Amino acid sequence: MPFRYANPTAETHAQPLTIGNLLNSTDRRDADQVIVYRDQKRLTYTDLRDRIGRLATTLEAAGAEAGSTIAVLDWDSHRYLECFFAVPMIGAVLQTANIRLASSQLLYTLNHAKAEILLVHRDFWPVIEAIREELSHVRSIIAISDGDAGEIPAWCIGEYEALIQSNRPRVTFIEVDENALATTFYTSGTTGLPKGVCFSHRQIVLHTLASVAAFASAAGPGFRRDDVYMPLTPMFHVHAWGFPFAATMLGMKQVYPGKYEAERLLQLRRDEGATFSHCVPTVLQMVIETAIAAGERLDGWQILIGGSALTPSLYEKATSQGAYVTTGYGMSETCPMISVNWHGDEPYDSTRGGLPIPLVQAKIVDPDNNTLPDDDEALGELVLRSPWLTPCYVDNEPASEALWRGGWMHTQDVASISPSGSIQIRDRLKDVIKSGGEWICSLSLEQIIAAHPDVAEVAVVGVPDPVWQERPVAVIVPREAEKAPTLEAICKTLDTAVVSGEISRYAVIDKLICLDALPLTSTGKIDKKALRAAIADNSAAAAGANG
Amino acid sequence: MPFRYANPTAETHAQPLTIGNLLNSTDRRDADQVIVYRDQKRLTYTDLRDRIGRLATTLEAAGAEAGSTIAVLDWDSHRYLECFFAVPMIGAVLQTANIRLASSQLLYTLNHAKAEILLVHRDFWPVIEAIREELSHVRSIIAISDGDAGEIPAWCIGEYEALIQSNRPRVTFIEVDENALATTFYTSGTTGLPKGVCFSHRQIVLHTLASVAAFASAAGPGFRRDDVYMPLTPMFHVHAWGFPFAATMLGMKQVYPGKYEAERLLQLRRDEGATFSHCVPTVLQMVIETAIAAGERLDGWQILIGGSALTPSLYEKATSQGAYVTTGYGMSETCPMISVNWHGDEPYDSTRGGLPIPLVQAKIVDPDNNTLPDDDEALGELVLRSPWLTPCYVDNEPASEALWRGGWMHTQDVASISPSGSIQIRDRLKDVIKSGGEWICSLSLEQIIAAHPDVAEVAVVGVPDPVWQERPVAVIVPREAEKAPTLEAICKTLDTAVVSGEISRYAVIDKLICLDALPLTSTGKIDKKALRAAIADNSAAAAGANG
Repeated sequence: MPFRYANPTAETHAQPLTIGNLLNSTDRRDADQVIVYRDQKRLTYTDLRDRIGRLATTLEAAGAEAGSTIAVLDWDSHRYLECFFAVPMIGAVLQTANIRLASSQLLYTLNHAKAEILLVHRDFWPVIEAIREELSHVRSIIAISDGDAGEIPAWCIGEYEALIQSNRPRVTFIEVDENALATTFYTSGTTGLPKGVCFSHRQIVLHTLASVAAFASAAGPGFRRDDVYMPLTPMFHVHAWGFPFAATMLGMKQVYPGKYEAERLLQLRRDEGATFSHCVPTVLQMVIETAIAAGERLDGWQILIGGSALTPSLYEKATSQGAYVTTGYGMSETCPMISVNWHGDEPYDSTRGGLPIPLVQAKIVDPDNNTLPDDDEALGELVLRSPWLTPCYVDNEPASEALWRGGWMHTQDVASISPSGSIQIRDRLKDVIKSGGEWICSLSLEQIIAAHPDVAEVAVVGVPDPVWQERPVAVIVPREAEKAPTLEAICKTLDTAVVSGEISRYAVIDKLICLDALPLTSTGKIDKKALRAAIADNSAAAAGANG
Repeated sequence: MPFRYANPTAETHAQPLTIGNLLNSTDRRDADQVIVYRDQKRLTYTDLRDRIGRLATTLEAAGAEAGSTIAVLDWDSHRYLECFFAVPMIGAVLQTANIRLASSQLLYTLNHAKAEILLVHRDFWPVIEAIREELSHVRSIIAISDGDAGEIPAWCIGEYEALIQSNRPRVTFIEVDENALATTFYTSGTTGLPKGVCFSHRQIVLHTLASVAAFASAAGPGFRRDDVYMPLTPMFHVHAWGFPFAATMLGMKQVYPGKYEAERLLQLRRDEGATFSHCVPTVLQMVIETAIAAGERLDGWQILIGGSALTPSLYEKATSQGAYVTTGYGMSETCPMISVNWHGDEPYDSTRGGLPIPLVQAKIVDPDNNTLPDDDEALGELVLRSPWLTPCYVDNEPASEALWRGGWMHTQDVASISPSGSIQIRDRLKDVIKSGGEWICSLSLEQIIAAHPDVAEVAVVGVPDPVWQERPVAVIVPREAEKAPTLEAICKTLDTAVVSGEISRYAVIDKLICLDALPLTSTGKIDKKALRAAIADNSAAAAGANG
């Protein structure tokens, strides 16, 4: 027998899951609530609604229509928030351009996404100036002078603030199909060309509802209407993890800090009373070090950490300073929220990704896609299902098919899962060191080595080995150049971990390299590809010198 | 230009919004969390998952398939919760039968919904016994003996607990279309035959997510993972306002109290530590009076009130006893959550329905469907849009068309809306008293009269009047029969309200009737239709006696 369905009338309105509907009643309910941009601007929610309407007509006047791609290059600002809403609300697609990409990669992503309109902060005028002749689809560029008076480039049609003030606000918007694309952006891609992910209105609305359901229902501090939200993950990076949509839906006070500078972030937190932020560990480190140097306590500040594992030592440091730190897991392809490592039984394991949020399914599989047990020991690739995973990479069928092979989204993260379902990421699939038929997790080694008192930073990578296929090499930044630890000292630390059963005997490193700093990708993660290349060059040079 | 869409691969899995997906990972994440049924049963979430699987195979063995309607007649129990999931998860439709309906109306609703399988608590065996010959679609009846040993009726195929223990649990469920119907139930209908509303999987999932987003994000106490949930609105009434789905999704401790008896409810609250409940004002009154009589404090108990306006006096009483009472608005047709009257600026106005929850749109219209201003003064019919409103009444086109005329769902509630969007229900459209071309709200009069110290209960209805079209009549239950207030005493109270501008001069009543009790509908609301009939009979009798 088939399923049963309702018989709606001709006039029944099945309200779609559109980004515009996240704004319902916020302009009146939270009329006097404020959205702050640095020390430069304070908007009410009534202003926000008005400015979204003005931006919509401004974009339409610049040639935007349903289906157009509109790219933004800006620091975290109220303008960016206005674009989060106005662009999808006119049926167009918001490209959150990665301003940290090399100009050639930025050019590639703008052309690949067929961006027709650009909104460009003055800090990026030189970059666009250099590539603008090669922009294949761009028809209008709007300058963002960010409060500075003075000339805008001749290739811009006008300045953001002046343009939106000169256009009447759109009040009624078209009803967008909930399955239409709302956003797109490109993963920084440590290998090959950047790949574009994309999300529909429906996906972003569901991600917003499920994220709020998860974070607001926390037993301890959560994400609540009386919190003050300030992103520390850029808005171009997976929509600042979707929290600007969530904070706006709930009518919360929001603080947008512009370019991230540790002193300004801390000052905004103090002055505006920010209570909820999120960032990757490297940004946390920057903020915590600055706070410690200034003797500043961070009590009452919830910080959600994702993007890579949070070392117990950095967790301890942030917690000692008063911050309430929670870890979670997600990635560009997942919109991004997948799991949260809730506080409960202490001690808190800051290296965990935690438990799936509502509607998410997670499991680990071997290279043949067989499901592995959730026993906290088996290592496999983490694969996912949920309503908000990117359906594909934009115009890249081979990569899309690899992403979704077997009907589950492949994260390329190697994980174990506990019997209660808690995810622990152990490594990137490409960073796992395959040695003698076994997998060695670079992350486990890194955590142990990072605990050595003379080590400031560490990365472990696999290098080709004629006997074992690969062998682990540790690259460290010593705390003090004169006190760089020796290979013997590090191996002694690792031997202790072998005895305690944390790692296997064959995981102990054969080689140690000291550097002044580790190479980083555009999103602030350690660039292991560059490290492997440097080690190979180094070995080749050494071999040449010896030969 | 058309919207842009993603190009999913053949294997991309767009996880649907199904009720089964609300359970994702709860059986492992919350494995040891408990679900309590009175003093009779304690389940873990692992047990719940297992029992849902067993119930699914039991229902299938009884002839259920996708599209079947399966009706439940039970008090609030773990069994009912199992049905909330198992029935929709096999693609069937759960009919939550209204056990308070007269048997002829119950028969009508079971036949109208084409119920094929019934699950019937022993308390309702006599009712079913009496009508079972006339049940047009029923093929199997499952008895619920609720722990009592002894015979089950010969017309039952078996007993619930014995059947599910004898069937193996289904582990893998079919993937249900998110737009397939999941539930149906009938409004008690003070006029005409009961009307069936219906909700799809998608609607219930969205209602669950949005409700949790709204209640969990409250600035004060909310609906959080460490709360203990106990319904005080029956599960047959709009899915106990959807909270069993929400509590299960979050893996909360849940307490199902069986038949509502004030002492037992209070004891369960104490013994199991219930912290979050919801009910209509009449149930609140029963519980509060019992608590006061027993000298029992209710601190730490959040109670959400809906269904009808909460008088300031009952609010005050509950608050004095320690309960944290919040009011909201919704109805059978709306799944039901529409708005919540958040705590904030005191004094708290317990008569308000409050602010729309995420994704909801609300406005008031005049009889010609023109939108009226949100100025807290204009009175109009409240009309709504959201993704979880019933698309139609089941097999009732004229009523469905009236419900959705103009593309907004008509609530038949007369409301005003404040500039910030806060809804205040003033009356039912049919209860508004049309006097001399103006609308008189019966609710406003009732609130003023209820404040009179000698009045225990009050209802105001319009009666036909040759000059004014209708005139208000107050029907009261005095606190003490000997101290029944006079018409003059009540009018004096009303005159004060005229002077202070609360009501108009023409709203002052002409007639007062004293009764021992007010007639109630099956859902515990005052039955104004019966009252009007009684007054008409009374007048006719009086006229006859006088004539």
